[in-house]
Amino acid sequence: RKKERFIICRYIRDLWQFAKEDKHGVAFSLKVGLAMIIVSLLILISQPYEVFGTNIIYAILTVAVMFEYTVGATLNRGFNRAAGTLVAGTCALMVIQIILVSAHAAEPYIIGASIFLVAVVTSFMKIWPPLVPYEHCFRVTLFTYCLIIISAYRNSNPVFTALTRLYCIAIGASIAVIMNVLVCPIWAGEQLHNEFVASFHSVAESLEECVKKYLDANCSGHIGFPQFITDEPSFQKCKATMNSSARIDFLANSAKWEPPHGRFRLFYPWPQYVKVGSVLRHCAYEVMALHGCIHSKIQEIYCMKLVAEPEISEAASRATELLCQLANNLSEMKHNPVETINILKSVHGSIYRLQQSGAFNSIQFTTLRNSFPLNLTDYHTMPKTNSCTNALLKEARRLNSWPSINSHQMEDARKIDRGKILRRTEIEYPNSMEALSSRMFVSLLIEFVVKLDHLVDAVDELFKLAKFDEHVV
Amino acid sequence: RKKERFIICRYIRDLWQFAKEDKHGVAFSLKVGLAMIIVSLLILISQPYEVFGTNIIYAILTVAVMFEYTVGATLNRGFNRAAGTLVAGTCALMVIQIILVSAHAAEPYIIGASIFLVAVVTSFMKIWPPLVPYEHCFRVTLFTYCLIIISAYRNSNPVFTALTRLYCIAIGASIAVIMNVLVCPIWAGEQLHNEFVASFHSVAESLEECVKKYLDANCSGHIGFPQFITDEPSFQKCKATMNSSARIDFLANSAKWEPPHGRFRLFYPWPQYVKVGSVLRHCAYEVMALHGCIHSKIQEIYCMKLVAEPEISEAASRATELLCQLANNLSEMKHNPVETINILKSVHGSIYRLQQSGAFNSIQFTTLRNSFPLNLTDYHTMPKTNSCTNALLKEARRLNSWPSINSHQMEDARKIDRGKILRRTEIEYPNSMEALSSRMFVSLLIEFVVKLDHLVDAVDELFKLAKFDEHVV
Repeated sequence: RKKERFIICRYIRDLWQFAKEDKHGVAFSLKVGLAMIIVSLLILISQPYEVFGTNIIYAILTVAVMFEYTVGATLNRGFNRAAGTLVAGTCALMVIQIILVSAHAAEPYIIGASIFLVAVVTSFMKIWPPLVPYEHCFRVTLFTYCLIIISAYRNSNPVFTALTRLYCIAIGASIAVIMNVLVCPIWAGEQLHNEFVASFHSVAESLEECVKKYLDANCSGHIGFPQFITDEPSFQKCKATMNSSARIDFLANSAKWEPPHGRFRLFYPWPQYVKVGSVLRHCAYEVMALHGCIHSKIQEIYCMKLVAEPEISEAASRATELLCQLANNLSEMKHNPVETINILKSVHGSIYRLQQSGAFNSIQFTTLRNSFPLNLTDYHTMPKTNSCTNALLKEARRLNSWPSINSHQMEDARKIDRGKILRRTEIEYPNSMEALSSRMFVSLLIEFVVKLDHLVDAVDELFKLAKFDEHVV
Repeated sequence: RKKERFIICRYIRDLWQFAKEDKHGVAFSLKVGLAMIIVSLLILISQPYEVFGTNIIYAILTVAVMFEYTVGATLNRGFNRAAGTLVAGTCALMVIQIILVSAHAAEPYIIGASIFLVAVVTSFMKIWPPLVPYEHCFRVTLFTYCLIIISAYRNSNPVFTALTRLYCIAIGASIAVIMNVLVCPIWAGEQLHNEFVASFHSVAESLEECVKKYLDANCSGHIGFPQFITDEPSFQKCKATMNSSARIDFLANSAKWEPPHGRFRLFYPWPQYVKVGSVLRHCAYEVMALHGCIHSKIQEIYCMKLVAEPEISEAASRATELLCQLANNLSEMKHNPVETINILKSVHGSIYRLQQSGAFNSIQFTTLRNSFPLNLTDYHTMPKTNSCTNALLKEARRLNSWPSINSHQMEDARKIDRGKILRRTEIEYPNSMEALSSRMFVSLLIEFVVKLDHLVDAVDELFKLAKFDEHVV
């Protein structure tokens, strides 16, 4: 009982916290309340009620159903509702004309058949892929048609009723739109733009942290065991960017419906955001691969990496700088091609130096191999490392939602049904494979830079389409 | 005019094609039609109309709004609707009690304030992240509350009206659920299961094709220029798997609501599908990285790859076999641990051999370097290659939605504002980097196999939770 109250308290605290953080959300709720009050005045005051009667309920319904979080989504939904209502109204008027000229006994059959037909057609259309975005329109068409035709059947003056309801719906829709646009508007475009800038920063941070970790693991000298990949904040952010596809599509689609506002002029190229988003996602994939590389079981011994450390660090920081520069340009809506190109140049320069140092490494590696004091197999079987491995792996297994394999533990659990199981983590990696890991890191970094080229191009196109001010230094 | 008619014809043909392919879609539409007919009989026949009056319209609305494509989604929506209606009804009854004891003049103020309060609370709750899945419930609560309270205000017998409407909504909901479950049910679980098996196959195919292409490019001897990556069907399939996150979540969430059906027993572990899906997506990322590696600009000269060709080919075909085996086990719902482990063993064996050949390669590479007859820089500047490059790149640029960079063309276009632009594709890759590409391919393949371990584990857990028949050979 006490615990239950405690849980409720916690929920309320969470909710309060959310309310404090999300000012937009609070504004949205108050706006909905205000719009509902205004529309219910229509029924609470006598005059409008005398004109419209109980049909005024449709105005209230319209506000309740149409009021969405962002302006774009509200307008989109309003369009769907209007289109659906008009199609339904047209169909209903046609069917009513047919009923008026036909025999009275045929009336129920005509109505039944028309409802069946409308239901089948709208249901089929709304699952047809090209029309899926207009699903709400077809849903509205179906139930509006039913409403009109049925009240026509049980009503003396169907056309008058239909028109009255149409006025009520129009009133409700206007109130919803006006409230949404005039009182603290929440623009989908603004949100999209801000989230976009944030995801540039999060990819940059993720890259920075990843490289830092790679070099740190290097300095502290231990080989990278599977760690708590999914707990890392940078990994989480990067993952959020990777999964942002649906959200960006939704926001861009909503933003298309918005009138010019703030910094965004008419015909602002929102669809280009979807394209840039897709390129940025590809960059995020590379960063994920770099993360995978850190946590890979094949890791080079530290002295191999140290040779290229300054180059890796330089290349990564230049790439991060480029991403931040793009994010800042986007955020300030300034087109700054010269500076971008200068940074891109320095990125390429640092990659070139990295490659050269890599070449140096590769030669050194084969010569070092035989003279290297610490035998690799000895290193692996050193007792300290082993106990450390076990503890780390067990911890990882416990905490980690990404299932990291612990062969020892796994074998314990499955000894029975997997008698002759291959001891997985004990795959013997030939010595040359350990050098591979650092080369792989380097080549993934290079691939990332190649993707950066694409990104710079896509952003450049966005800047041109959006006609940002060009700052020529 | 003629062209317009032609476009309409094409749409109709597309629609017809879609109807022929998607039998489920046709069944769904006919079911909606049938349900609407049945519910409209309530108003077309006199007896029920005499009982319920115009309130019967709520039954029709409920069917129109609640009928979803799959059984699970319909039940989920039905639950939301029922919960919303009950909450709204309870609130409304409480407010009506307050109104009955208060002064008549205060009535409109109480109603207005209560509508404002309900609107604010429901709007805020529905955007609170933990409650976002129940968004529909809050929407229903808001408009149902308004409907009840407003008709209570303008009606002599509010409680009777509210109850009548509740009955009508219950009738509509029952018809929607019964029609959806009994007539050709479309189960979200079945869909999820089938799409799952399909995505295993598509990752396997994508891997197979990717490796084939890598080895083919190798035999034909040309270095891989950016090609039409996005046009490749295997790439497309793999991309679909990568972006399937939202769809799998939705289907798994719907499937949870479904009663046991067909091969799926009660408490079937649908959430585990989400986990396996996430691991499979990670495999797909690796395949994407392999694709990226083929189309990377850094490519080893062909004779370097040939050494490891049989090993790469073997490892890839074993991995493909494992994926297909998992897909088949899943499809037939058979748990076959011994065979899976055998294949996994052979995958690891082939990877081990690949690594050893890789080691061989690495040594051979450094010795070969000086004696290799064709100078690399010569190779790059050979006239044939260059013209071929230009044509290929231009074609790629034209056809490709993924913006592939063509530095020459880019420079032509931007010579003015990017005076001192770095000639990007002309980054000089030191010779050692070309050997890197094949090593990277190999190491990505190894990473893929590491992910396969995770996948086998996740699928194994699914099999155990789902209590599939264990086939012990």
